[in-house]
Order: sequence, then structure tokens, then C-alpha cells
Amino acid sequence: MSLDTATLERLRGQDAAHYLHPFTDSRELAAIGARVITHAEGIYVFDGEGRKILDGMSGLWCVNLGYGRREIADAVHRQMLELPYYNSFFQTTHPRAVELATRLATLAPAAGETRFDHVFFSSSGSESNDTNIRLVRRYWDLMGQPQRKTLISRWNGYHGSTIGGASLSGMSGMHSQGDLPIPGVAHIMQPFAFEHAHPGESRDDFGLRAARALEEKILELGPDTVAAFIAEPVQGAGGVIIPPDSYWPEIQRIVDKYGILLISDEVICAFGRLGHWFAYEKFGYRPDLVTFAKGVTSGYVPLGGVMVGSRVAKVLVEQGGEFNHGYTYSGHPVACQAALTTLDIMQAEGLVERVRSDTGPWLAQGFAALADHPLVGLAESCGMVAGLQLVRDRASNTLFDSALGVGMLCRGHCFNNGVIMRAVGDRMIIAPPLVMTRSDIDELLRLIRHALDLTLADVRARGWL
Amino acid sequence: MSLDTATLERLRGQDAAHYLHPFTDSRELAAIGARVITHAEGIYVFDGEGRKILDGMSGLWCVNLGYGRREIADAVHRQMLELPYYNSFFQTTHPRAVELATRLATLAPAAGETRFDHVFFSSSGSESNDTNIRLVRRYWDLMGQPQRKTLISRWNGYHGSTIGGASLSGMSGMHSQGDLPIPGVAHIMQPFAFEHAHPGESRDDFGLRAARALEEKILELGPDTVAAFIAEPVQGAGGVIIPPDSYWPEIQRIVDKYGILLISDEVICAFGRLGHWFAYEKFGYRPDLVTFAKGVTSGYVPLGGVMVGSRVAKVLVEQGGEFNHGYTYSGHPVACQAALTTLDIMQAEGLVERVRSDTGPWLAQGFAALADHPLVGLAESCGMVAGLQLVRDRASNTLFDSALGVGMLCRGHCFNNGVIMRAVGDRMIIAPPLVMTRSDIDELLRLIRHALDLTLADVRARGWL
Repeated sequence: MSLDTATLERLRGQDAAHYLHPFTDSRELAAIGARVITHAEGIYVFDGEGRKILDGMSGLWCVNLGYGRREIADAVHRQMLELPYYNSFFQTTHPRAVELATRLATLAPAAGETRFDHVFFSSSGSESNDTNIRLVRRYWDLMGQPQRKTLISRWNGYHGSTIGGASLSGMSGMHSQGDLPIPGVAHIMQPFAFEHAHPGESRDDFGLRAARALEEKILELGPDTVAAFIAEPVQGAGGVIIPPDSYWPEIQRIVDKYGILLISDEVICAFGRLGHWFAYEKFGYRPDLVTFAKGVTSGYVPLGGVMVGSRVAKVLVEQGGEFNHGYTYSGHPVACQAALTTLDIMQAEGLVERVRSDTGPWLAQGFAALADHPLVGLAESCGMVAGLQLVRDRASNTLFDSALGVGMLCRGHCFNNGVIMRAVGDRMIIAPPLVMTRSDIDELLRLIRHALDLTLADVRARGWL
Repeated sequence: MSLDTATLERLRGQDAAHYLHPFTDSRELAAIGARVITHAEGIYVFDGEGRKILDGMSGLWCVNLGYGRREIADAVHRQMLELPYYNSFFQTTHPRAVELATRLATLAPAAGETRFDHVFFSSSGSESNDTNIRLVRRYWDLMGQPQRKTLISRWNGYHGSTIGGASLSGMSGMHSQGDLPIPGVAHIMQPFAFEHAHPGESRDDFGLRAARALEEKILELGPDTVAAFIAEPVQGAGGVIIPPDSYWPEIQRIVDKYGILLISDEVICAFGRLGHWFAYEKFGYRPDLVTFAKGVTSGYVPLGGVMVGSRVAKVLVEQGGEFNHGYTYSGHPVACQAALTTLDIMQAEGLVERVRSDTGPWLAQGFAALADHPLVGLAESCGMVAGLQLVRDRASNTLFDSALGVGMLCRGHCFNNGVIMRAVGDRMIIAPPLVMTRSDIDELLRLIRHALDLTLADVRARGWL
């Protein structure tokens, strides 16, 4: 179903004339013309030139069940005819929101004494993290400690693009546009050993040091001013940064010591991505709030939310009165139905268990083997996310000059040769659909290796090696 | 399709146990049990007890085409099978986002020299107004005036519930939870003559005075520190506040004089609600940015966005480089398809014209006639939004003690007797589906009058009159 040249050119022209893409230089994009993704099936997307491309990023970390799932389309169709929308503002509710809240409360395991019985819905991870900011401050107000306002997050973490979400995010490029972060947000180092470990420092020693940056920041700010710490279990948009094993236990010790709330931003990591329904279970820490989005509907309809742990829920519900916060589309019935069907499929196909014990380990083994490639300095995965570092010299882990844009060059070779990887600087990352089989993973790895070979040849031809 | 008692009780119990509703006192709701909306058809919703209720609020200002529109369900189903999701981050695009951006650019009329050729997509009004904050600050950075950071909005305006949106909103209840507003937001009075006009002040004189509060605030803050003014054409959540005719021309004079950007938040008012595709056309002002959401998909799938006027787009595109902002679901193909079909239906059924020249005036006439009711102090409408003020004494426009909650009492009588009105304090408001016919409107007005009669009897029985 490639498009004829006239249609393709018309779409590209209209795209350049009218559509402002997210996180894009519009003038640059207009000059080259956007790649038009026309349709998709299973783990493949197809572009306007008829290329079949293995989607190693599940859309944008979300299409976990792959494309073309008729069960979801059918269920959404039925729901649209039955009740396409209703609100939950007017002391009203509807079956799908109730069923999804109940289902999620059942799926989220208790963490120590914390149960996750309550859910607040939104339409995105951004809206959910804004909800978290409002929730934690409301909690501390109700606890009689209104001076606890500050949320601590991490440099190179990603928590969304609203004013609140972009403030929590530790992305300097975002902070440089629009006067961010807002007051009451502080950032600490990320647990990325490859970049930040001292020479000779063990991975676990580095993990402890990175975690203790939280304690240092708490002491610097004053422990009674800190409301919460928010972090991704594994950093996603920052480049698939997998923390050392020592990191999360030490974080847990610190938040416990100072009594601050812990927010686990699992927009990417929940719903099987790391082989568990929720990622806090994998790492064994005990969050008070859990952000989710993306995978909950496999991306088919926008939906996000926050699992509210019992420590916060108890105070909010029993003492809080009206929580003056919410969205028109909180608990949208069509979105909730898409989520219910997504969860049905995940359970019927045993996807969480499959990632944990079959495909996740298979990917880990195959992906780590890419580290023998001359361009690759580190290749590691966790469940069904993985990242590799492009380097100029493997022996010394010397990086390319970032201005060369070797990552983007590699991304182009990937796209043009049948596989989608995302470039984060010179880190190449994947988060493939959870429905991938072992042989799909083998194909993915072959395509990645081929794109790396092409990138190597290109880099050599340009004289960058 | 009423539910059996056991099912209804189960849903209510699970709702109380698991679902945190937006803008709700969860403990209070658990005590009474939520009303379960099970299904809907046309302009009616149905609850678990089998009540058929005329939805005078279009869900929450969004289901403009009414419920059960099979064309939208079918189109969404097709799109889900073809391409349920793809992103626009990777120099990629897809036909639905391009088509919708192009369509909206065609529908949005030029305002003076300002053309609306560019669209930025989100999933809600909240996300869109956060986008606006980031856009206007980015614009002024690029214009070499980075000190222009402050956005001015109005007390009792509503612009969403994210940190940014709730800051722009002028709702004291929201500001009192979570340390809002953020710095760089200032508020001025609303143009609500009923509440704020001096004795003997004409409506138009009051409108000029309310608009000049903007000039006073600009001068107070320093004209070179102000980035933008944001306002709803007609305030929605604040209680359907219709500005005097003198208001918008004076606002336009002031933003022109000081060169600040004007943002028209049309989340409620665009797409025919006021009888025009966009409400700035009705009032004749010239915004630089236009927020939309809700009606664009008739609420069937979450979608929002910003129409970016040429003054901002030119600078952003030609000089901006990468705009470091965007959402996973920006340009979601299923949401865009729902919007395209919604716009198809609106055009095929001539709904915008119908509201402007037929049903809008019909509602205006009938709604104004409610002002003869003993409880009603003011009843006015604009297109297909309307509000009436409940008063204790019509001659003197004396209000009830707000602590009595007469508005909520009236809302209960409405719901229990077949019609949905929203209560904003003691203002009762409606925003009925745009597909309403004259006879539907007659029925709506009969139901409202009946609920007012029941409220009157109830208020008398309680000794509040």
C-alpha cells in the first residue's frame, strides 16, 4: 500500500505547511520532508514508499501488543455505540471506569504495607505527573506540613512535557525553553554508570553513590521541605539507563529515613515492559504513587493515571474533602475499554510472564552480543527495553564528538533498512512490542547489526574514525 | 437496560473503593453512592435505575453530536485496524494528523493579518494551555525579549487542571491546593456584570471597565514583562459568563497597544458552540493562539490542540530550531480520525449555521423566558451555552447564602427528573448537544422549568425563603 508520488508529495507538503510536530525543528523537517507512516500490522509499520519496517520502539514505548489488534478495535467500537463519553464530575460514574480501576487495583501488588487500591485517571503521562505534584502537596498540606513542597527528580529523567512534567524532567533542552523548572523542583544525578562512574569504581559502589545524591539533596534543601522523590525504574527517554542493583534499595532506605513520598514513574516500565505488571515489584521498592500511561491501552487510545498508595489515599479520602483537580477525560469510557481489552489480551497471552522468563532473557543475551561490534561500547537490556552506546573507540570507551550526530546517522540507516531504533544522542535504544517471539527478536537483532554495519561504513567514509 | 440491584451495588461499591473521581469529595460520594451512567443515545443518557435523562451539558461540554454516532465508531474502527498509533517525533508523520491539521487550518478564519495555518496537537485542553505557556515564552525568547514571561488571565476563568492550566485558571479552590499559581501568572477581574457592575453602571460601561483591568495590570507589572493575555470568549466552567459587547473590542485595543499576545481559549466555545467554527470570529477579535479540545472529536476520543497564528508560527518555524515540547499522543491517528469524522458530520448537517441562525436564537428566546420564574434572577445564553442565576429575591437580586448549596439542590432535582444541568455555586448552566432541534430545546426548557419548580418547593419546605 505504498502511496503514489502525487499523494505522497501532497501529504508531505501539507505536513510542512500545517502540522507542528512534537520535539521537532519544523524548518529542518520541511526541507527533507516527513516519512509518512501509512499503516501497520503486527510488529511492522509501513511507509509511503512501501518500506516494511520492524518497529523496535512500539510506536513510542506504547504499542506493546503490536498493531492491528482487532479485539481492541471491536471492543472500542462497541463501547462507542454504548457510551462514547461520560464524565465522573457530577457524582456520576460509568461501568468501564469502575471496572478498570478495580482491575488495576487487583493487578498492582502491595508494596510492604502499601496497597494500591485507588486510581486517578488522566489521558497521558504528563497529566499524570502534574496530578502527582498536586497530590503530594495536597497530602502534606493535610498532614499539617505545608512547607513540604519540593519534589526531587533526576537529571536526564523524563516525566512529561507539561509545565509540571517538563519541570520534573531533567532535560536541559526543555528547561532552556519557557522558564523551567518551576520553583519547588530539584534535580540530582542519574544512576548511569557508563557516564558518571569514577575510574575503578564498581557498578554497585557507583549505584550507592548515585542514590546518596538524594540524601545530600534532602539535607541541602532541609528535610522538612521535601515532599517527594520521583524517578523512573529504568530511565526511558534519557536513553534506557538501567540502574545498578545497589541503587533502588539505597533510595528506599533514604526516603524511609526522611519520611518523604516515593513516586515511581512507570509510564514506560509498567504493564510487562520489564517482565512485571509494575516495575516497582521487579526492583523491590515501595512507592506511594505510581504513574502509568502508554502500555495500559497499548497506545490505541490516550489514557494515563496514577495508582495511589494507601498512605496517600487514606489521608486524601478520609480527611481531604474535595480534591480540586481533574480532567474532562478522566476515566474516559472508550479509553478505559481499550485498556480493559489490552489487559485481557496480556493475560490471555501470558505476556508478562513471557517477557520475564522467555523473551526478555532471549533479548538480553542477543542484545549483549552486539557489544562485539566495533561501534558499540555498551549494550544492555532489562526486560524488553535495551540501549547501546555508540563509541569511536571500544577499548577506551571514547565517544564521538556529539556535534557529528552519529546517533541520528545510525537512526537513518535503521529506518531505511527495515528497523526502528531511537537515537538519544549517541545511544541507540529499543522498546519492542511485548508480543515479539524469539524469532522476531532474532530478526530485530539481525536488522540492528546490519544498520550498525552500514553506520560504521558511513562513519568511516566520512573520515570520522 | 437498567441494572439489577446486585450489579448496581457492586459497581457503586467498587467505585467507592477504587476510583478517585475528578473534582470530588470521595468520602462524601462513597456515602451516597455514585449515579451509574450505563449507556446513551442521541441527546439522552441512561442511569443504572433506568432513568432517561436529557443531557443538557453534552457530557462535559463535549458530546456536541450526541451519543451513539455510528459514523464515528465505524471510522475509529477502520483507523484502529489500519494504524492505531504512530508518533510524529522521528521526522515521521501519518495521513490522519496531516489531514486534520490541514482541515483545521482551512476552517479557522483569518483574523486581520493573522492566518491560522499551523496546528500543534495534544490530548486535552489542559495540555494545550500548558503548550501555550511554553509557546508564548519561547516566542518572546526568540524575539529577544526574554523578560516577557507573565501571562495574564482572569479570576473565575478556567484553563485546565495541570500545574500550568490550574495556574492560568482563576479558581481560588484550585489555587488553595498545591501551591498555585506558579510565578509568572497574574489575574484580573472577570467581565461578569451581574456580580461586579456598580449600581447604575451600564452593561457596556462595565464591560469597558472590566477590559481596562487588563491595561491596569499590564502597567502594574510593567508592559515589557507581559507575554500574553489568555481568556475564554465566554467563560464556561466559571458559570457561562457572557461578556458585554464592549468587552472584547477594548481587550483588542489594549493587547494591540502593548503588543502582547492574545490567546483565545476555545476548548468549550469552538466548533459551533457559539454558532461559529471559532468563537473569535463571533466577537471579532484577533487572537494569536487558539486553544481547542472537546468538541473537535465530540468527546469520543481525547484530543486537543493549539491553532498557532502566523505571528507566532513564523518566528517559531523560521527561527526557532527544535521546539522542545510535545506529547506521546500529539496527533494520535485514532483521535485525528474521530475529529475528521466529527467535522464531516458537522459540515454535512450544517450544524454551525444551524446554531447561529436557528437553534441558538430559539434557545436564547426560550431560555430568557425562564427569567419569569421566582427563583431566577438572570437567564441568558449565547449560541448553545446558557446560564441562569438562582436568587432568593428577584426584585433585589438577593442571593441565597452560598453555604445552603441551593445550586446543588437544584442539580439533584434536575438529574432525578430527566435533565442534566451543572451547578456552579448557584448558577445553573447548560451546554446542550448542537444536534438539538427546536422541539428538543422546548423539551429541555420544560424539564428545566419543572426542576426549578421542584427546587422552589424544596427551598420553601426547608424554610430558606
